[in-house]
Amino acid sequence: MSETWTLNPAEILPPKDFQAAAAASGIKTSGLDLALLYSTRPSRGAAVFTTNAVKAAPVVLSQRHLLESRGTLQAMIINSGNANACTGEPGMLAAQAMAEATAGTLAVPVEQVLVCSTGVIGVPLPADRITARLDDLKRGLSPGEIGAAARAILTTDTRPKVCTADASIGGRPVRIAGMTKGAGMIHPQMATTLAFVLTDASIGPALLREALEQACRRSYNRISVDGDTSTNDTLAIMANGGSGIPTIEPNSPARDWFVEGLTRVCQSLAQQVVRDGEGASKFVTIRVTGAPSEEDAAQIARSIANSPLVKTALAGEDANWGRIICAAGYSGVPFDSSRVSISLGDLVVCREGGAVRFEESRASEILRQRDIDLTVQLHAGSSDATFWTCDLTTEYIHINADYRT
Amino acid sequence: MSETWTLNPAEILPPKDFQAAAAASGIKTSGLDLALLYSTRPSRGAAVFTTNAVKAAPVVLSQRHLLESRGTLQAMIINSGNANACTGEPGMLAAQAMAEATAGTLAVPVEQVLVCSTGVIGVPLPADRITARLDDLKRGLSPGEIGAAARAILTTDTRPKVCTADASIGGRPVRIAGMTKGAGMIHPQMATTLAFVLTDASIGPALLREALEQACRRSYNRISVDGDTSTNDTLAIMANGGSGIPTIEPNSPARDWFVEGLTRVCQSLAQQVVRDGEGASKFVTIRVTGAPSEEDAAQIARSIANSPLVKTALAGEDANWGRIICAAGYSGVPFDSSRVSISLGDLVVCREGGAVRFEESRASEILRQRDIDLTVQLHAGSSDATFWTCDLTTEYIHINADYRT
Repeated sequence: MSETWTLNPAEILPPKDFQAAAAASGIKTSGLDLALLYSTRPSRGAAVFTTNAVKAAPVVLSQRHLLESRGTLQAMIINSGNANACTGEPGMLAAQAMAEATAGTLAVPVEQVLVCSTGVIGVPLPADRITARLDDLKRGLSPGEIGAAARAILTTDTRPKVCTADASIGGRPVRIAGMTKGAGMIHPQMATTLAFVLTDASIGPALLREALEQACRRSYNRISVDGDTSTNDTLAIMANGGSGIPTIEPNSPARDWFVEGLTRVCQSLAQQVVRDGEGASKFVTIRVTGAPSEEDAAQIARSIANSPLVKTALAGEDANWGRIICAAGYSGVPFDSSRVSISLGDLVVCREGGAVRFEESRASEILRQRDIDLTVQLHAGSSDATFWTCDLTTEYIHINADYRT
Repeated sequence: MSETWTLNPAEILPPKDFQAAAAASGIKTSGLDLALLYSTRPSRGAAVFTTNAVKAAPVVLSQRHLLESRGTLQAMIINSGNANACTGEPGMLAAQAMAEATAGTLAVPVEQVLVCSTGVIGVPLPADRITARLDDLKRGLSPGEIGAAARAILTTDTRPKVCTADASIGGRPVRIAGMTKGAGMIHPQMATTLAFVLTDASIGPALLREALEQACRRSYNRISVDGDTSTNDTLAIMANGGSGIPTIEPNSPARDWFVEGLTRVCQSLAQQVVRDGEGASKFVTIRVTGAPSEEDAAQIARSIANSPLVKTALAGEDANWGRIICAAGYSGVPFDSSRVSISLGDLVVCREGGAVRFEESRASEILRQRDIDLTVQLHAGSSDATFWTCDLTTEYIHINADYRT
């Protein structure tokens, strides 16, 4: 094995000294709805949470735990089928009950337990159904159950979303394994995006957090199905050092190497969320280049990705570049539109901010594909950013309008 | 007639000393596509333009004219069927040709002519078709043609959108008359929202501009079909003093009276745009109350109005308050979600940030109506704001996805 990361986006394999278990607690009417992720040795942890002002109880509790434990995390308990959001004081008590039962059963400090929930909003969470299953979960813990755990966190997803990255450093194999859920940023009942990453790399808590934030910025913060930010979004990581590699130091080549692997795993997971986007028929990669800064490029790409006008044109396989330049224009980033070029795949459809003659048949051929690359060149600098989104179809409306009625 | 404004949202009647004309220039394949609005006496003028970084040529030219004329405006020339946006230097020359021909024909200074275009983006504007019709337009000028002008500015609209407000001050009648176009903020080919208001009130240019901005803030800046801001949006006014009332002074009761009338006309026009929103089946009034400031309330209301999740729930007649509080939460305005109440009509569906028992049948009855009132009470202050939007339906997708193909 080489230092280069090898990605396997079809499978999740356990890093060293991690175990998992899954169960059906009855919170969902059927199927697995409870996942436990556990490091058999003390482990570092970090997480990135939703920026929504309305935060679900498990988000508030997990933020507090990570502060109290100073970035030490040995277990994650996750339920699907109920978001435990907008549930008031009883919701907070339910989240605490989940954490305490997990901590007691595994004999770890309660602040080293991360709690996550996903599913319907505003409905009391029956925590007793979860706590009643913890002994079973503990008995079921095994490295081989990590795939079952990845299935247990799903809600309206049509398939599990996983990724494993392998590499070696100094002759020792290191693994980063991730699972995520979400059929878009939004779901029929405001279920949410969650992602859990496990690694046997050795890394301190501050550096782990920084690495996670950096990976998140170029993966989960670069996708959108419709721009709705949920109350429960969580991306969490445990790093337990089981690989036996030397602890990764700040400003070292090993640090860049780890961030690269983590970013690639998170990008794969985030892209799988977009590909499973509600009603999506297209997977669209938006690349903004020639920008003054990466932030500017990302902001323009985000504005294009969230435009219903652009998304419906893509669904209709319409080479409507006017909608793309217009959405770039209201992004809040100033630029000179008379310098802008726009391409679909390798076909230039706009140059110097104006129309270019192109063959409609060639455009149709490109837009008929499931994967579409859209490039906006600003000619205003040397920075770029990539963003992933899907189209907006009538199926999306059906899924979201007809859910309860 | 009293000082109280009487609104007539079904008809546009000319204020004193204004004339209009309309023509079919052939820019559209059929029908009226050219409108001329003219004050027979010197007139003040003001306008609010799109904030999009990509501005159409007529927007750039009109902004320049209003600066050069120091808020004097005697004519407006408007074409539909072509937005003259992303058309480069030839586009600017076409806008100038429109202005110069209008100025020459009417014998007014060119900087006192406002130019507007709306329709397809990125296609050269054949200005000669417009300039060739100016003599006819001049001959056709008449107060009675204002209704024809209101029809000539339409693109994909299903009906004209007009409003007339009448009142009297000091025994003299004053009229504010407005026309607008737009079947949403966005259109199949990036056509745009335009609005033109004429009044015979007497008011100085600085105060007129301030009054227009104030009215716009509570009308056009409080509507959304899908959050796309176009390249051509323009709201413009001419005030010619034809009523003979004393000039309205700053900080006077007359000033507040004028702003009220203008705001009500602009709100009526803006609401008519939402009611004609592409694919819309619901007209939704979102009221956010108990906010620390009006700006905060408006920002939260805007976030709710733009949420695809909320809009599809409304299309599906689903009392899904979790989506509403979630959209409020990611508005960027911090608030305590445990104090929030949400009502549909007079039915409370969320209290103290959590679920309330309500009769689904009562909720269904409210949501089956075409007009729906949605109130979010923050219990965090004494300011409020109202916002108008429509639902998001499969018909919207059909209109926007299937336009060219």
